Amino acid sequence: MAAPDSLVFPESDRVFLEPHLPPADHSHHATTDPRLPFTTLTFATSLDSSLALSPGTRTVLSGPQSKAMTHYLRSRHDAILVGVGTAVADNPGLNCRLAGVGGYGAEGLTGQPRPIIIDPSARWDFTEESKIFELARNGRGRAPFIVTAAETVPSPVQKEVLERHGGKFIALPVGTEDGGHRIDWTALLDCLAREGLESVMIEGGGSVINSLLEPTGQALVDSVIVTIAPTWLGRGGVVVSPRRRVEDGVVVPASRLTGVKWYPFGEDVVLCGRIKGE
Amino acid sequence: MAAPDSLVFPESDRVFLEPHLPPADHSHHATTDPRLPFTTLTFATSLDSSLALSPGTRTVLSGPQSKAMTHYLRSRHDAILVGVGTAVADNPGLNCRLAGVGGYGAEGLTGQPRPIIIDPSARWDFTEESKIFELARNGRGRAPFIVTAAETVPSPVQKEVLERHGGKFIALPVGTEDGGHRIDWTALLDCLAREGLESVMIEGGGSVINSLLEPTGQALVDSVIVTIAPTWLGRGGVVVSPRRRVEDGVVVPASRLTGVKWYPFGEDVVLCGRIKGE
Repeated sequence: MAAPDSLVFPESDRVFLEPHLPPADHSHHATTDPRLPFTTLTFATSLDSSLALSPGTRTVLSGPQSKAMTHYLRSRHDAILVGVGTAVADNPGLNCRLAGVGGYGAEGLTGQPRPIIIDPSARWDFTEESKIFELARNGRGRAPFIVTAAETVPSPVQKEVLERHGGKFIALPVGTEDGGHRIDWTALLDCLAREGLESVMIEGGGSVINSLLEPTGQALVDSVIVTIAPTWLGRGGVVVSPRRRVEDGVVVPASRLTGVKWYPFGEDVVLCGRIKGE
Repeated sequence: MAAPDSLVFPESDRVFLEPHLPPADHSHHATTDPRLPFTTLTFATSLDSSLALSPGTRTVLSGPQSKAMTHYLRSRHDAILVGVGTAVADNPGLNCRLAGVGGYGAEGLTGQPRPIIIDPSARWDFTEESKIFELARNGRGRAPFIVTAAETVPSPVQKEVLERHGGKFIALPVGTEDGGHRIDWTALLDCLAREGLESVMIEGGGSVINSLLEPTGQALVDSVIVTIAPTWLGRGGVVVSPRRRVEDGVVVPASRLTGVKWYPFGEDVVLCGRIKGE
């Protein structure tokens, strides 16, 4: 029987998403680089391209249909990836609550994606009480893989909690830029491939998304699924907008989508496409 | 015969716009205040809510279909309104090139909207060679009404050019705020109504649009038509995003649309709705 907090996403709504998802039969991986996981970038913004009213707040932008869609999309990927800001802000479950997946109507963990949290300095202050571990203990989700910078030494207590639930820390070389961390997306995706993860849905937050919309990131993205809500959040929000791009001294559009489809979806619209890699 | 640079907007595409336009039979004016013109706010942005890559540049965001749509929308309004930044940057025609309107296949000026240019300091440096006057002389558009602050004294030469072509300066009280001008939209729309203009399409640029998305402005808007192109322009563009709104010390969404319809339109999407006035 489905759990009481499970979400239903009707078959009729799944049809339009299918061409934009990793093939269900694993017939091939990424269109960008076949050794890497199929990478889907997905998020929801306001009309003024904000993910949230301010950093560290969760802003409900879209309707219940969109929430169910997100959980359906999670069920179609081996992994879901967020930046540490999202983990710190939201105490997120990072599981899949779609009716019919493992823990929500089925045995085992079928359909439960592996959460990947990008946390270069290991600043996420989790304990075994964090929602993600509670769900893991209850067979309703998987413990995360937490990606840190190579030089970061995680707390032994946290390492124990993580590993006891089936997760782990993964150290990767992480560069710095403008005082912040700069993820090497190719190295990261390569690492996920070596973990047997054939598809990853990248969900946020702002700095992760903007980084992937820059030239080196976008070349790795196989599919983009953006939900837009008919609201202006106003200035000062967490904005999706990549750094401006200059070619031969002239500012040019930072990123274009091709193979574009727009699907009106309740009050929102869902935009699906591919990034035109350079 | 239609002029060679006229634009065709097919009947089949007009249907979806009809509920969002001033009634063709002039059966009533604004839904917001019946004494004021029916006010349509319309513009095209990127996914990151930019109108253009930088101030003073024209960025082609959307396809030829969207351009024809803009000219169809112009034909359905008595006036079109832009801020001085648009006039200065673009040497715009601000006429309607839809096949079948006056100057583009029909006699007279039927379907040609009156351009309204908001220019508080009268800084638009036009001459009779400006495109808008050339079009007026050729029977392909109307000369503009230029709205200045009450204390501004326009150049007598410009006044003569303007009036000779059938336009005029209109002085209105204009406040200041943050060092810039603050339009009293109610006074402005009231003034347009007294000129016999029953509908106005507000096209841009960024400061005009953002001002109308604030509480006092949005209460005057009857219809919103936004075209979104599947491109991220990148940071530093001319962004549509109203000032953030705080209620009881809490940041809340600045503006919401109701009665929303999304129409996929070529590579773009057209969003139609009404602003939920407060």
